[in-house]
Amino acid sequence: MASEVPTRAYRRLSVEQRRRQLLAASLELFAHRAPEEISLDDVAETAGVSRPLVYRYFPGGKQQLYEAALRSAADELEQCFAEPPEGPFTERLTRALDRYLTFVDEHDTGFSALLQGGSVVETSRTNAIVDGVRRAAAGHILLHLGAAQPGARLRMTVRTWISSVEAASLIWLDEGKVPARDELRDWLVEQFVVCLVVTAGRDEQTAEVIREALALEDAEGAVGGLLRRVLPVVGDAGHLL
Amino acid sequence: MASEVPTRAYRRLSVEQRRRQLLAASLELFAHRAPEEISLDDVAETAGVSRPLVYRYFPGGKQQLYEAALRSAADELEQCFAEPPEGPFTERLTRALDRYLTFVDEHDTGFSALLQGGSVVETSRTNAIVDGVRRAAAGHILLHLGAAQPGARLRMTVRTWISSVEAASLIWLDEGKVPARDELRDWLVEQFVVCLVVTAGRDEQTAEVIREALALEDAEGAVGGLLRRVLPVVGDAGHLL
Repeated sequence: MASEVPTRAYRRLSVEQRRRQLLAASLELFAHRAPEEISLDDVAETAGVSRPLVYRYFPGGKQQLYEAALRSAADELEQCFAEPPEGPFTERLTRALDRYLTFVDEHDTGFSALLQGGSVVETSRTNAIVDGVRRAAAGHILLHLGAAQPGARLRMTVRTWISSVEAASLIWLDEGKVPARDELRDWLVEQFVVCLVVTAGRDEQTAEVIREALALEDAEGAVGGLLRRVLPVVGDAGHLL
Repeated sequence: MASEVPTRAYRRLSVEQRRRQLLAASLELFAHRAPEEISLDDVAETAGVSRPLVYRYFPGGKQQLYEAALRSAADELEQCFAEPPEGPFTERLTRALDRYLTFVDEHDTGFSALLQGGSVVETSRTNAIVDGVRRAAAGHILLHLGAAQPGARLRMTVRTWISSVEAASLIWLDEGKVPARDELRDWLVEQFVVCLVVTAGRDEQTAEVIREALALEDAEGAVGGLLRRVLPVVGDAGHLL
């Protein structure tokens, strides 16, 4: 059996393939341990290569490797929110959040370390990478809402909801992944819908956006389900009208 | 005239008074400049004392002074959410947010630098202080909601909303304080109400909390106004029921 398994150090890889292999090994390590607990030896061992080889590709050492791995993770996260512009908005958002929460689930410790800061390898460059993911996500969402020129109130609504998603992800990891991932996903979709509705009460652009989005929803979808669940809760609030 | 103005360096202050004076001078500086742009000379000059005096009170230098100033700011922020447990919940929350946003408004640059991280004086200790404020705010809010033993879903709702408030504050400062502070405050109160309502659709404890809170609201209050503004927006969504 042993002779069938190629020794990984002897595999011939192109420069780009080798780089990807080292980044994949790093991401795997950063996913489950805090950056300060990981050495270049660990990366070399995980990738099945020598330590000098890791240094040849990342002469800046751990900081450079960490930033490259983060950049690669950021690219993956940004892709979560890319989605064809078809069907009800909540279905698109559900698919995007499903991909995002799968990423969070698979990279738990590294994801927390990255977003909670205080890491020894945190710099203004790594912060800029994380901010880039937030901006990309906001851009995707605004496009899906059909808002090519979003005003201050609509932008603030989208950006604060993205912060809620990050916070909810961290709390979720911190609380042992309770509630289940699908419930968290659906709850976040519902939160976004009502946050938009609240803003719509004060902003005509958001009101237009929500009217068009609701017209595409159907009774069996996320908004229909939400309405049926919350109407009994607020049913006694007739005195407020 | 000059003889009537006492030279500040000669004022006799107790140790505690002097400490407070130095912290107040530091907070004033940290409020409008990033920590890395402030020297102990600036603090000495603002307080009207000698540099050695600043070092006598804060032998750990700028890092110690920064942490003490941050601790003092954190105490002030935590106090924002202390409120007598009387009257409709949204009125209490409005008063708390009013104090909080006044603080944000008055400490703009320092507030951004603190929360956005990446500062050279950021450490796990300063992160812990900021987290303490978040926890204190969540504790106050859960008490006002009458939830002595909040479950995972209610806690997550409160904590994610607190993140939204932070994010909205930073965006607000970044966008030149648009919309007006009062509108931002009322919008954040409304966001919290609907976030609770969404959770109530999936969690019986939150449903109880929201029913009791709504019973104390009146038509002229925050929830009544919200309902009247958003019903016309969602009025065409009858196909979802």
